[in-house]
Amino acid sequence: MSDWIEKPIKGVLLDITGVLYESGEGLGTVIPGSVEAIARLKECGVPVRLVTNETCATREAVVDKLQHHGYNVTVEQIFSPVPAVLSVLKERKLIPHLLVHPAVENEFKSLLSSRENRGTPTCVVMGDADEGFSFVNMNDAFLALMAMDKPVLFSLGKGKYYKHKGQLQLDVGSFAAALEFACDIQAEVVGKPSPQFFGAALADMGITADQAVMVGDDIVSDVGGAQKCGIRGVLVRTGKYTPKCENHPTVKPNFIADNLANAVDLIVSCLKQI
Amino acid sequence: MSDWIEKPIKGVLLDITGVLYESGEGLGTVIPGSVEAIARLKECGVPVRLVTNETCATREAVVDKLQHHGYNVTVEQIFSPVPAVLSVLKERKLIPHLLVHPAVENEFKSLLSSRENRGTPTCVVMGDADEGFSFVNMNDAFLALMAMDKPVLFSLGKGKYYKHKGQLQLDVGSFAAALEFACDIQAEVVGKPSPQFFGAALADMGITADQAVMVGDDIVSDVGGAQKCGIRGVLVRTGKYTPKCENHPTVKPNFIADNLANAVDLIVSCLKQI
Repeated sequence: MSDWIEKPIKGVLLDITGVLYESGEGLGTVIPGSVEAIARLKECGVPVRLVTNETCATREAVVDKLQHHGYNVTVEQIFSPVPAVLSVLKERKLIPHLLVHPAVENEFKSLLSSRENRGTPTCVVMGDADEGFSFVNMNDAFLALMAMDKPVLFSLGKGKYYKHKGQLQLDVGSFAAALEFACDIQAEVVGKPSPQFFGAALADMGITADQAVMVGDDIVSDVGGAQKCGIRGVLVRTGKYTPKCENHPTVKPNFIADNLANAVDLIVSCLKQI
Repeated sequence: MSDWIEKPIKGVLLDITGVLYESGEGLGTVIPGSVEAIARLKECGVPVRLVTNETCATREAVVDKLQHHGYNVTVEQIFSPVPAVLSVLKERKLIPHLLVHPAVENEFKSLLSSRENRGTPTCVVMGDADEGFSFVNMNDAFLALMAMDKPVLFSLGKGKYYKHKGQLQLDVGSFAAALEFACDIQAEVVGKPSPQFFGAALADMGITADQAVMVGDDIVSDVGGAQKCGIRGVLVRTGKYTPKCENHPTVKPNFIADNLANAVDLIVSCLKQI
């Protein structure tokens, strides 16, 4: 057994899309063995948190989708950028100009309901707005930033692109790059690979980084991001994985598994030995 | 007299918007004294070329607008990115996927009329598409780049934003930054501040860089771009000029003039002395 698994594992972080199901028309298709793998971790008493950069759906909608595929998971297990940025906005008393998917706009409603939070925006929050990345919406976000003394831009994730209904599609990180260039600023990333984001899921399980394993299909955001925090990173050969990922110039996964079932086999075998 | 003007001046390069007229509703408004200033250069036998990053109008349409304002200029005097990129495409036998303003699409017609040039695109050409920077158009350009063995992206200028009808508006450079980030590439800039672009206008006048003066309202693209080529750069206090430009961290104009008339006064006085 390779040495990466010698240290005890007290909790597992999982990406959702490409690890639990493959995206596609409608609800996509479940990845064989993944439902049983999560059930097995539960049986073994290993806590699981799902860390996702999904910003086109609420956590409730994500849970509905997962339950449809047979997963036994709750909203509390899901860590996604929208609740994370809401905490940041409240803490720093910022009023957001939103460039987000209509499906998550409502999540910001409570924040914007108080009178003082309906004033002039003091930051821009952009998620994966999909077709909402129109010229007019991009320009409005740009104008909001330019009107600020010190422009603050939150990017919910920093992905370049992803696979949607079998075709590549530009992700929020690319549109954030446009506003970063226009305003000479750096976006604050909320979501993977931000260390704060991984940290919140670890804190919720009450464990430290070196006690956790992250399993994902994104070599940079999932595996590289986790490793930068001291979390072991496992790459799966499902989802957006391509053989090129195995020779990434800077990120070397601690382990490459065929799929989540394969990764959990190894994790569980390790639990028994220790 | 400052030493920048001691070397002979054999030709003058002028930006158009913000130097010859102020943009605004309709055709904008002429800048007082600029029509007479260009006429004066002609009387003195100093050749003039207009170097513009305008990609929302053909050169013919630009000349019409200038003639409406009282300028005596011809299409041959105008150097703009569309004819420049057409030369590059022909030379390198590239087939473009276009993300440009509808007003200049026709300019590419002759290039795309031959059978071999209607094949799979081998480059993307993006100009200021204005509202054409929709999500779908951006994604189509991204997919065209991703389908190429070695993606080639031409950005017609690299401006962050400009003033349009009294309001700031995102320029082509910002949208190019999104595709550069998405595809991990660097766009080739055709237009100011590219040295090739300034070089073509100099070659047309048959003069060298140190014999020319560039007058513009953009501290980076006009003044800084010209200076990088060895051309003297004059900033005017019209157009998009703001007092902040006078303290730019890296670009120091050879001279700052209140307007084109003021700049030409100095140029003409220098001609008389030599």
